[in-house]
Amino acid sequence: MLGRLNHVALAVPDLAAAMAAYRDKLGARLSEPQALPEHGVTVVFVDVGNTKIELLEPLGDASPIAAFLEKNPSGGMHHVCYEVDDILAARDHLKASGARVLGDGNPKTGAHGKPVLFLHPKDFFGTLVELEQV
Amino acid sequence: MLGRLNHVALAVPDLAAAMAAYRDKLGARLSEPQALPEHGVTVVFVDVGNTKIELLEPLGDASPIAAFLEKNPSGGMHHVCYEVDDILAARDHLKASGARVLGDGNPKTGAHGKPVLFLHPKDFFGTLVELEQV
Repeated sequence: MLGRLNHVALAVPDLAAAMAAYRDKLGARLSEPQALPEHGVTVVFVDVGNTKIELLEPLGDASPIAAFLEKNPSGGMHHVCYEVDDILAARDHLKASGARVLGDGNPKTGAHGKPVLFLHPKDFFGTLVELEQV
Repeated sequence: MLGRLNHVALAVPDLAAAMAAYRDKLGARLSEPQALPEHGVTVVFVDVGNTKIELLEPLGDASPIAAFLEKNPSGGMHHVCYEVDDILAARDHLKASGARVLGDGNPKTGAHGKPVLFLHPKDFFGTLVELEQV
């Protein structure tokens, strides 16, 4: 059921400073910042060709990455997102196998406009896993 | 200078348990465990097609992931590795731009038999970055 790595999300406290570091130190090609107020983040994509690296800065008062940045004020690796063909089948399989789906267990529309679920990091050894139906 | 995402490394305290979770809960295809005593880890690759996900368990007394697991006993996202064409040119550019290269600044032979460098997480907003010459 697990498909491609869709993206790796890195939380940063200061997107402009992170963009400068990735561009000037690593020579990375970056997208323009995109504000996603309904998802509580501003995102910049780092072009690596085979997948997406997303630099996320909190946006608004109820950002889903605010608590992470409170615990990790410098920023850090926030989650990985894998693609699945059928997110409801994936969800049912996960629940039957004892994995915990965050929230009410129903897919939400993610930042790419596709259905997504987040899985409890305790079930995956400290890594927050997102699944996205593609 | 920044090329493809070569891999994402996830540190786990118990590789057998992590393999079971990825296989049974996520339906992932996994490699056999490979002991890399000279790198202080045992690694399992999760097949995602477009890049590599590496589950790392400490091996031996001087594992480079031991301190991370002491701080994060459940495990967690350890580092991301990007490909570069010329690691010495990348190193020189990084140092000239003020980024800190870990160790003595000279590439080591990484777990894939290629020259690698690690960059200070404080220069990349809490994310440990590995560069690998491919």
